[in-house]
Amino acid sequence: MNNEELYRLIVKKQSMLCVGLDTDIDLIPRHLLDYSDPVFEFNKAIIDATIDLAIAYKPNLAFYECRGTKGWESLEKTVAYINSKSEKTFTIADAKRGDIGNTSKMYAKAFFEWLNFDAVTVAPYMGEDSVTPFLEYAGKWVILLGLTSNKGSSDFQLIKNADGKLYEQVIRKAQTWASADQLMFVIGATHPDAFAHIRTLAPDYFFLVPGVGAQGGDAEAICKNGMNAKGGLLINSARQIIYASKGEDYAQAAREKALEVKALLQPFVATL
Amino acid sequence: MNNEELYRLIVKKQSMLCVGLDTDIDLIPRHLLDYSDPVFEFNKAIIDATIDLAIAYKPNLAFYECRGTKGWESLEKTVAYINSKSEKTFTIADAKRGDIGNTSKMYAKAFFEWLNFDAVTVAPYMGEDSVTPFLEYAGKWVILLGLTSNKGSSDFQLIKNADGKLYEQVIRKAQTWASADQLMFVIGATHPDAFAHIRTLAPDYFFLVPGVGAQGGDAEAICKNGMNAKGGLLINSARQIIYASKGEDYAQAAREKALEVKALLQPFVATL
Repeated sequence: MNNEELYRLIVKKQSMLCVGLDTDIDLIPRHLLDYSDPVFEFNKAIIDATIDLAIAYKPNLAFYECRGTKGWESLEKTVAYINSKSEKTFTIADAKRGDIGNTSKMYAKAFFEWLNFDAVTVAPYMGEDSVTPFLEYAGKWVILLGLTSNKGSSDFQLIKNADGKLYEQVIRKAQTWASADQLMFVIGATHPDAFAHIRTLAPDYFFLVPGVGAQGGDAEAICKNGMNAKGGLLINSARQIIYASKGEDYAQAAREKALEVKALLQPFVATL
Repeated sequence: MNNEELYRLIVKKQSMLCVGLDTDIDLIPRHLLDYSDPVFEFNKAIIDATIDLAIAYKPNLAFYECRGTKGWESLEKTVAYINSKSEKTFTIADAKRGDIGNTSKMYAKAFFEWLNFDAVTVAPYMGEDSVTPFLEYAGKWVILLGLTSNKGSSDFQLIKNADGKLYEQVIRKAQTWASADQLMFVIGATHPDAFAHIRTLAPDYFFLVPGVGAQGGDAEAICKNGMNAKGGLLINSARQIIYASKGEDYAQAAREKALEVKALLQPFVATL
């Protein structure tokens, strides 16, 4: 999928919603524990209940890794399930990987060949050769950390010199490595006022925006300040959607919450 | 294990060698492919052949992840095998993780509870709350990226302002988060001249030094410039040891190469 195809998907689905599959086995409804793979059962029901509303799904790798090989099986089945649906959806491995070239190549193999995700999140600290191995896969994306949603984002990302803040330098330099067809940036929803400025740094690139909902980001301000002519935003919401109910009605409750977030974004998507 | 115990282990084994288990199924001797888990068979033989020479083992997660659940099984068995040996060795998950607090907590669970590693490598870009969840495990370590061994290390790590270069600021700030009993830094062997300076930034902390061998780092200069009174270095060598032979004598060849690297470091370790 390239930038234009992602745009067309947004227009077709009238949505910029990304559902974060941060599926914690300790937080899912108890009756699912009777299944052989409770996490996959949960994800499947959430996907079925939201796939007409979501432009993307983003499993958070940590929640799968912490369950060992069982967790990786749940992850493998989840992405295969999304890819099996007739309704095309963009899939993001939220893995925050990044290592020397020969190692990043192996991570790319894991996420793009074995798991067949469309995109993987990558940390920029190790620079160009930690990122480029992922770009060798045509149609696959790197989503590079820019300005993240957490408190610690101010520790290093805001360090400043004559060339600007570190996150600004990351956003500028990375554009010399890849076009807007293969690269986007993580920009946390907890910095809504910064979006107008960040949009000027990377006019054509998509931003993946985590932190809406549980982390308190302001979706409307982000759309107002951060969109471009192709939409340019994937607004991620995880906990507030997937844990909308802890009862047997969890999928229906997730759908209702997803509809709410989608409706909030609707006036902005309608302008595309 | 704390700083003092690691020091005592170095003195006892007379070694600062860390063997990198970057085990690529395409590069191991072909006869191993007859086993149900060729990567584990390979690792087991390498471990048996080097455990009296190595202070630490460092599986590189990417090489396991790229084989999916099978890879995670190999990894799980490998670390359990190391931990089962009567000869205590420090185990490092070279994973370069790091995410918002609730996610880093899950990664910590994966590496410290499920896999029972002693340490995990972490990328600093997301700051304090991406690192501290790992520190909640007593006796477990974060190995934070400082100055890495790859070409791309110059892209952002050397960005400079009045407070110094980014990597220097990372090394200084991280010391306010954890003592030398739970934190060390990754300092690439490809910057041998920088070690004397970096040692002044963190006198008491261990450095994990990748890039010796295949990446061309100079082990002697690093020892001369980088050691402290507790040793303070874990010198990692991967490809040159584990792929010393592609024949059935691979374990013996690995032992011979490990002996060579250990001998190179011996005059320095002898001063402890």
